[in-house]
Amino acid sequence: MTQGKIIECNAAVAYSPGKPLTIEKITVEAPKTDEIRVKVVKSALCHTDAFTLSGNDNEWPASDFKPVILGHEAAGVVESVGPNVTDLAEGDHVILLYTAECGECKFCLDHRTNLCVKVRSTQGKGLMPDGTTRFKNSKGEPIYHFMGCSSFSEYTVVSKHSAVKIDKEFDLEKAALLGCGVATGFGAAGYEGIGAAKKNNQITKGSSVAVFGVGAVGCSVLEGAKAAGAKKIIAIDTNDKKEEWARSFGATDFVNPTKLSEGENIVSKLTSMSDDGYGIDFTYDCTGNVNVMNDALMASARGTGISTVIGVAPSGAQISVRPFFLIVGRTWTGIAFGNIKGKSEMSRLIEASDKGDLSLDKYITHRRKFSEINTAFEDLHSGDCLRTVFEF
Amino acid sequence: MTQGKIIECNAAVAYSPGKPLTIEKITVEAPKTDEIRVKVVKSALCHTDAFTLSGNDNEWPASDFKPVILGHEAAGVVESVGPNVTDLAEGDHVILLYTAECGECKFCLDHRTNLCVKVRSTQGKGLMPDGTTRFKNSKGEPIYHFMGCSSFSEYTVVSKHSAVKIDKEFDLEKAALLGCGVATGFGAAGYEGIGAAKKNNQITKGSSVAVFGVGAVGCSVLEGAKAAGAKKIIAIDTNDKKEEWARSFGATDFVNPTKLSEGENIVSKLTSMSDDGYGIDFTYDCTGNVNVMNDALMASARGTGISTVIGVAPSGAQISVRPFFLIVGRTWTGIAFGNIKGKSEMSRLIEASDKGDLSLDKYITHRRKFSEINTAFEDLHSGDCLRTVFEF
Repeated sequence: MTQGKIIECNAAVAYSPGKPLTIEKITVEAPKTDEIRVKVVKSALCHTDAFTLSGNDNEWPASDFKPVILGHEAAGVVESVGPNVTDLAEGDHVILLYTAECGECKFCLDHRTNLCVKVRSTQGKGLMPDGTTRFKNSKGEPIYHFMGCSSFSEYTVVSKHSAVKIDKEFDLEKAALLGCGVATGFGAAGYEGIGAAKKNNQITKGSSVAVFGVGAVGCSVLEGAKAAGAKKIIAIDTNDKKEEWARSFGATDFVNPTKLSEGENIVSKLTSMSDDGYGIDFTYDCTGNVNVMNDALMASARGTGISTVIGVAPSGAQISVRPFFLIVGRTWTGIAFGNIKGKSEMSRLIEASDKGDLSLDKYITHRRKFSEINTAFEDLHSGDCLRTVFEF
Repeated sequence: MTQGKIIECNAAVAYSPGKPLTIEKITVEAPKTDEIRVKVVKSALCHTDAFTLSGNDNEWPASDFKPVILGHEAAGVVESVGPNVTDLAEGDHVILLYTAECGECKFCLDHRTNLCVKVRSTQGKGLMPDGTTRFKNSKGEPIYHFMGCSSFSEYTVVSKHSAVKIDKEFDLEKAALLGCGVATGFGAAGYEGIGAAKKNNQITKGSSVAVFGVGAVGCSVLEGAKAAGAKKIIAIDTNDKKEEWARSFGATDFVNPTKLSEGENIVSKLTSMSDDGYGIDFTYDCTGNVNVMNDALMASARGTGISTVIGVAPSGAQISVRPFFLIVGRTWTGIAFGNIKGKSEMSRLIEASDKGDLSLDKYITHRRKFSEINTAFEDLHSGDCLRTVFEF
């Protein structure tokens, strides 16, 4: 019985920007009011973890880098719940949600958005909603939380709004992937009325789609496009090795923008690939590169094209185009966590997995022991990794 | 009987960028296949005419400025029709359409856009669809067409796709205003299912709206917002004299961005004016200034805000923001001619006028004889002019 007690366990702590994580014993306090403590069973590594570790994250800058437990794409089992938690109980299987859903704030009450603000301000500071942390290292120093999840720890404490209960029969390894990247891309495609569809940005049957960046997010947009019945699904990546993956997730075409013919650029290339020469119906940036975001907008269709920014850009970088591209009817928008409301819509993603529209296991290219977490950061940049999942 | 014959009449010809127009006798050929010749009864002056005259228009640059008859906001009477014209006849009252509607192209067949391409490529070159002009000066030199209209002439020839028949009882002076600015702003507000509403961008009842720039376009967005039942309608202009106008067209608030308190900027000011502090539901740039466009996007609401670019920016200018503003759910789009399909939806604007939702006569601040056209260009910049209408 660990309920109500402090738990000692292993965690990977980021002490300095750009440096390997330190795996060490930490203590995890019992959950307070409106909180739950979760035994993390499976956690994946996402580019956002690496991004924050790099020190380029505006909210966690190198100049003010505090010790933090990263990790936000994970699933586990509720170990205990604090006071005032009614929808989750000990033993429940859960997916952690970096985008919470309180069900009560302006944003939760608006069907068009998933950007719950209930815990957002403290989450951004690496704190629990009461302004404190639940983690300490062996010196008794506080360790900060990350994205409301901190899944690079055997145990973590999160807000009750930051976890969704799932069926115990659903594989926790697959479930972990729904905590970020795959949900983000699949939701951005607007699968069957959820995600981006709630903002009238659902990929339509017979349409053309271009996805820049063939990582886990890009692949899940490709799968979403395929599920939606898009006719032409173009994957764009500078690494030719990604072509096979892209096609396996639904791409009908692959373009390497570094290998175009003379006089072509990626915008003219994609525009020429559209049926009528007026551009691509739906384009997605899954790279975080602002130049790519600009290209994605310009390659979208005159009159009706919608370009969605998904990738997170480096601090200070700006998108920039001639406003003419908007005046002639293009729409530029963006999305976080696929516009999925984590608590109320997660079951739809699980259905998509059960139906075979979302092939979660294909995203798991690497499995590692938690102790190998620093190697996993290297995997991310190897070009042959979609997701590494850790076992604890 | 002038049908089939060349007509000699007065026109105002732009020979050089930045120079006054020359009023002179020109000849107007009879309409060819798919064309009509129109006696212009009322024409207004729009900023776009002044913009092209300035030499800053990409399509009509100072470095390659050819003699042209400007003017595109006008109504008149069909003098004669060429072969293959069935929906228009001699004596019909028409509004000229710089955004044509052929009813057959990809864009006309798509309910989401009004960007007909049937005559677009030749129109941009100042030519009729067959690649020639119908105007000549007294030296026999060709004079080019403008925006498919060229209404600064007693007679003009336009494509049959570039004019819409209206009821003879509808005042031609009011009708002229529907040829550009007022239709643009009112359509952008998404009046009762037309215009921007076809792109799911209709101002909703109880919402907040911010309109940058209180000219004719801005005022018509304000009227559209009022008709839609918006709760807070904020007009923004650097000229305090515009406040009275803005309020008369529906603004509930007026902000002069040059007179903010210390530490405020227009984005923080507008955000603080929203009910919940998360920004404005619908924002519109009606200035053509890219910095204003950026502000309008940033002042729109986190999660659900939509910012629409209406103003035409100077050649080469770019909009630029951190993509974060999109990632957190804002939408940036643009609109031309209010997304109104000129032939099939004009009757809806006339209904709006008849119902009193659109007070066309209020936009006419100046009336001048055609011979005073150069003075009208000065009126435009005087700050007390929404529209000058010419009588021929």
